[in-house]
Amino acid sequence: MTASVFDHPFLSGLLGDEEIADFFSVDADIRAMLSFEAALAKAQAEQGIVTAEAAARIAEVCGNFLPDVLALRRATATDGVVIPELVRQLRKAIGGDAADKLHFGATSQDVIDTSLMLRLTSVCRLLCGRLDKLRGAFGEIDRQWGANPLMARTRMQAAIAIKVSDRVNAWNAPLASYEDRLERMAVVSFPLQFGGAAGTLEKLGDKAGVVRAALAEHLGLADHPQWQSQRTTIADLAHILSLISGSLGKFGQDIALLAQAGDEIELSGGGGSSAMPHKQNPVAAEALVALARFNAVQLSGIHQSMVHEQERSGAAWTLEWMILPQMAIACGASLRLASVLVGQIKRLGAEGG
Amino acid sequence: MTASVFDHPFLSGLLGDEEIADFFSVDADIRAMLSFEAALAKAQAEQGIVTAEAAARIAEVCGNFLPDVLALRRATATDGVVIPELVRQLRKAIGGDAADKLHFGATSQDVIDTSLMLRLTSVCRLLCGRLDKLRGAFGEIDRQWGANPLMARTRMQAAIAIKVSDRVNAWNAPLASYEDRLERMAVVSFPLQFGGAAGTLEKLGDKAGVVRAALAEHLGLADHPQWQSQRTTIADLAHILSLISGSLGKFGQDIALLAQAGDEIELSGGGGSSAMPHKQNPVAAEALVALARFNAVQLSGIHQSMVHEQERSGAAWTLEWMILPQMAIACGASLRLASVLVGQIKRLGAEGG
Amino acid sequence: MTASVFDHPFLSGLLGDEEIADFFSVDADIRAMLSFEAALAKAQAEQGIVTAEAAARIAEVCGNFLPDVLALRRATATDGVVIPELVRQLRKAIGGDAADKLHFGATSQDVIDTSLMLRLTSVCRLLCGRLDKLRGAFGEIDRQWGANPLMARTRMQAAIAIKVSDRVNAWNAPLASYEDRLERMAVVSFPLQFGGAAGTLEKLGDKAGVVRAALAEHLGLADHPQWQSQRTTIADLAHILSLISGSLGKFGQDIALLAQAGDEIELSGGGGSSAMPHKQNPVAAEALVALARFNAVQLSGIHQSMVHEQERSGAAWTLEWMILPQMAIACGASLRLASVLVGQIKRLGAEGG
Amino acid sequence: MTASVFDHPFLSGLLGDEEIADFFSVDADIRAMLSFEAALAKAQAEQGIVTAEAAARIAEVCGNFLPDVLALRRATATDGVVIPELVRQLRKAIGGDAADKLHFGATSQDVIDTSLMLRLTSVCRLLCGRLDKLRGAFGEIDRQWGANPLMARTRMQAAIAIKVSDRVNAWNAPLASYEDRLERMAVVSFPLQFGGAAGTLEKLGDKAGVVRAALAEHLGLADHPQWQSQRTTIADLAHILSLISGSLGKFGQDIALLAQAGDEIELSGGGGSSAMPHKQNPVAAEALVALARFNAVQLSGIHQSMVHEQERSGAAWTLEWMILPQMAIACGASLRLASVLVGQIKRLGAEGG
Repeated sequence: MTASVFDHPFLSGLLGDEEIADFFSVDADIRAMLSFEAALAKAQAEQGIVTAEAAARIAEVCGNFLPDVLALRRATATDGVVIPELVRQLRKAIGGDAADKLHFGATSQDVIDTSLMLRLTSVCRLLCGRLDKLRGAFGEIDRQWGANPLMARTRMQAAIAIKVSDRVNAWNAPLASYEDRLERMAVVSFPLQFGGAAGTLEKLGDKAGVVRAALAEHLGLADHPQWQSQRTTIADLAHILSLISGSLGKFGQDIALLAQAGDEIELSGGGGSSAMPHKQNPVAAEALVALARFNAVQLSGIHQSMVHEQERSGAAWTLEWMILPQMAIACGASLRLASVLVGQIKRLGAEGG
Repeated sequence: MTASVFDHPFLSGLLGDEEIADFFSVDADIRAMLSFEAALAKAQAEQGIVTAEAAARIAEVCGNFLPDVLALRRATATDGVVIPELVRQLRKAIGGDAADKLHFGATSQDVIDTSLMLRLTSVCRLLCGRLDKLRGAFGEIDRQWGANPLMARTRMQAAIAIKVSDRVNAWNAPLASYEDRLERMAVVSFPLQFGGAAGTLEKLGDKAGVVRAALAEHLGLADHPQWQSQRTTIADLAHILSLISGSLGKFGQDIALLAQAGDEIELSGGGGSSAMPHKQNPVAAEALVALARFNAVQLSGIHQSMVHEQERSGAAWTLEWMILPQMAIACGASLRLASVLVGQIKRLGAEGG
Repeated sequence: MTASVFDHPFLSGLLGDEEIADFFSVDADIRAMLSFEAALAKAQAEQGIVTAEAAARIAEVCGNFLPDVLALRRATATDGVVIPELVRQLRKAIGGDAADKLHFGATSQDVIDTSLMLRLTSVCRLLCGRLDKLRGAFGEIDRQWGANPLMARTRMQAAIAIKVSDRVNAWNAPLASYEDRLERMAVVSFPLQFGGAAGTLEKLGDKAGVVRAALAEHLGLADHPQWQSQRTTIADLAHILSLISGSLGKFGQDIALLAQAGDEIELSGGGGSSAMPHKQNPVAAEALVALARFNAVQLSGIHQSMVHEQERSGAAWTLEWMILPQMAIACGASLRLASVLVGQIKRLGAEGG
Repeated sequence: MTASVFDHPFLSGLLGDEEIADFFSVDADIRAMLSFEAALAKAQAEQGIVTAEAAARIAEVCGNFLPDVLALRRATATDGVVIPELVRQLRKAIGGDAADKLHFGATSQDVIDTSLMLRLTSVCRLLCGRLDKLRGAFGEIDRQWGANPLMARTRMQAAIAIKVSDRVNAWNAPLASYEDRLERMAVVSFPLQFGGAAGTLEKLGDKAGVVRAALAEHLGLADHPQWQSQRTTIADLAHILSLISGSLGKFGQDIALLAQAGDEIELSGGGGSSAMPHKQNPVAAEALVALARFNAVQLSGIHQSMVHEQERSGAAWTLEWMILPQMAIACGASLRLASVLVGQIKRLGAEGG
């Protein structure tokens, strides 16, 4: 299937990011959903809401369940969410009394949002690692050619001579803050979603708080009141994804402009042309610009989703699903390509500088 | 891979559109690209630029060539476009003198844009057919319940009584113009892209015009000077895709509001809930709103791509690839879901009206 | 007040367009609204719905009425639209029986949308004239330097030599189609808005059609069933405004890139710098890029407004007001600046070419 | 002039915010710019770079200078920025040797960005105060009707009964985090912009660091290396402005939906209709939705500006100017209208609940 360049059999070679994309695979999603259901049963068993046996049976089945994906697809078409059918399949596999205890007190959104939070935690960690590596690579560029003179350009005109260091710093400096923020998000912030049908955990009575806290702990997420119609966390993440691809888009644009002028950079590994074999196109640099503009566009949709009516908006929530995974992959691809591009720099600044 | 809901193993059940998506598959793309190369050789043979034998050999190979997609992926990562490697594979398969004649005078963009134009022609026809059917379905709704009273609502407040006909007309009327436009586009407008390395067809000398005209005719596209850096056609199509999903988003929003109030509509086939088995969620209606907002967001990116620097912008062009296919599929899904939703209406307007 | 650069005391020197902005002034808006009310009374008098005397009195007052704008402001804060208070003020000024006949059968949206249509007709004519002049100016550039060699650049890399003509054509060619479209819109398309409270002209009974036709004719607009919740016309115009600024953004980007390289262009009249008196910044070229990206962003909001719920959406309609005028002015400013920039070109292509 | 609803003589009654808009007036901007120039001379006098007399003379003139705004406008049209002409006018007013010392080592962007930072600090404080008040008002709503039953609605369908408290909490909870963030920004973060021609403060030699630190202190801003091409601070602020209007858009949408159903809310002060005097339109609620969608659209443009090429991009920077002030005013207007709307609630939840 090839609606998206990120899934595309050949365009993903340029624009995709398999490592990040994996977290948005059905496998990863289902696995995280099953871990929610197992952890929920466990937390409820600890409070005597379900029996230890039921929780154990639920955990056992959730540990290695392979859903009928075609049936999930068919049901999603009708239900708008995958959970009713997934729960149906799971209950059938669990059998007995335990079947009824599965998903007790929870709603589709709890499972779907929590699955996302679990996977975004991993995505953030991965992006952090790449930011760190990229910052190191920029540092290396700086060590090698930082003292070389470079013509500063303001408003597309030659200004005064600066050092390569000055330009590299403009690329590198924002990344430190992004890494900090992602790290804080991954370590502290991603919140459990658990509110039940309409956010009040009405089936858990006075045990709601303690079950929620235990569930968060079992899953390694922050314990937080349900945020079913409050989408700030999603928007915050989307913002930082776009900041990263935006800053790397600036890097890409700068490299493309340097490559056009030609005298202050030497690049290896540019792209070939079917019509002009002599050319070396700064393909990674251009792709960085495209990814930056893509995420800047998408962010608007995530903020449109902030208008999330009543207790749960099918429209606003679905819109998030259409946008967020691609923003994460675009950000990942930006980091991947920025590393590639840094590696292609064979000289920066004026020769003999 | 599941970056996009449109490719997603289960979410595509709700939001996807297989029929439209097929035109964005690698198979369809490659097939259209091969038809370009075959038609180009044929047009050049007619002018004595290549031999009839070479053109025949090229046509033969292009007729059933299966590329090594993994190698295409690898090369796209470097070249930014698939064509250099595809041409390399094809030349190897063609062999002999004919191999050199393949792709003569053309550039990657000619092949990629023309392949898109060929497929968009089919997409437009398909959307036209669906618009026509949907208009019929609205007409049927009108015939059945058009005379029923309906409370008009302005600014979210009850206004005065109107007829169901009045509301149905607001849904249906814009579709006629959209169908007209798409039909005109499909019949008349999609232009061949053929300009060579930098748009001047410099290798074809004074035969450039006649070859281009013949190539357009062989492919069933409009003969048009190259538009490599002029992206109006793309933007025009994106605009109409978003108009369609926008108008259907209004339909969806209206149905969702009717369904909430409950007294002026009867709907079958709503979505189930994992927490509240009694509910019937107007899932298709909400999905229509999400698809409308999605396309409204994406359109911004296509218009950003109008700033297409110099003779060919890798950044602006790549951005189109990231956005246009999903807009087309979102539009297709809107039409598909609107038909589903119309079919779910079991009564419209006040009971006993 | 200076929320917008287009109204800003000094930034409007760079980015504004007084001629276009005038059509969005309160004066122009009120004048158009008054012409609607006068024409409505006239059309209704022709059908015996109001007396000739009443229509004459209404026309007289509407001919030179100066509203109390502060009171309009206060009332708009409450009513969300200006019309109830404007009608109140007008009725007071008209007095007698005629007062009650003012605005008969109409609603706020009829007046506001029709006023916009009247003014957009003039805006389109103005833009057409500018497009025509700009096309002529590009033609002149072509005559002067078209034969000069220019290095084609694809993917930010030197490709092969083309002529200045080839590049100028890429700037100029799209404008012809835009001029055609705007002309057609101005001559044929802008539709009267007239539907009454909920779109059914319920107060006019079987005279609704003939009154509407006469009203359209008196105002010089197309007679068209009300389109209160169908916003395609608005979106179509916004699309073309953004196409124009988009194509001119490409022109600006190209000039900025030429100016940076420096060898293939000579420009006069660039901007000065407070820190580097030697610089000549291609200010108009950069502003064209900014205006293009601005309109590309705004278009998304206009398409969000397509999701116009029920018979009248305060939210969607208000969003249009926030966006459309600035899009029109941005488009006008683009055309103005493009003319300035063309005039600054003192040479194009290689020297001695 | 009336390009923007925020400056519009009557629409600003609904959508404007005079208090926030004041910070974007020419007066406020010029005043902040003059304070930059005076503080710069003072900091440089402290280091012996300029004489104390020169600094005193500069401070004296900057303390009450009234520029020729028409000349500023004319010059901005050419220079793209206001500073060269402002500095020229100031130098003429200062006279003598001190004139040359004005603006020493600085560039236009230093003055313009720093002026923005100074005013955004005040804007943030103002928004903080409003958030605080609004949170209090929601608290009051909760105290009055929090215990009333309310039908939860998920996916536009009645779900289960919750309390008014639950809904109010979904409106109120996100605001605490926004207030915290704005407060932190206002207290800690807004950074001085001071880099000189190309960011290196090359004219200040080894005194660059100490002058910058002193300048920051005199202005009450954070001392920070120049960020001329690193626009994260701008994007961060735009993000939070859109988060606020987004969350209040959710509140507005909820109120509009409650008002449509009619049974669970009593509202005073709705808007009148010119056609239907009986109606009470939830105008403020709809405006909140429009403002939310407006800012969600605009944010995309600010993120496009992250692709800020080289040492200073006229295009990207200008785009910020076109967007940021209106986002701030839209956010301010959201807070203002939300307070109005909360005050219009006369009952929430089921009667007799």
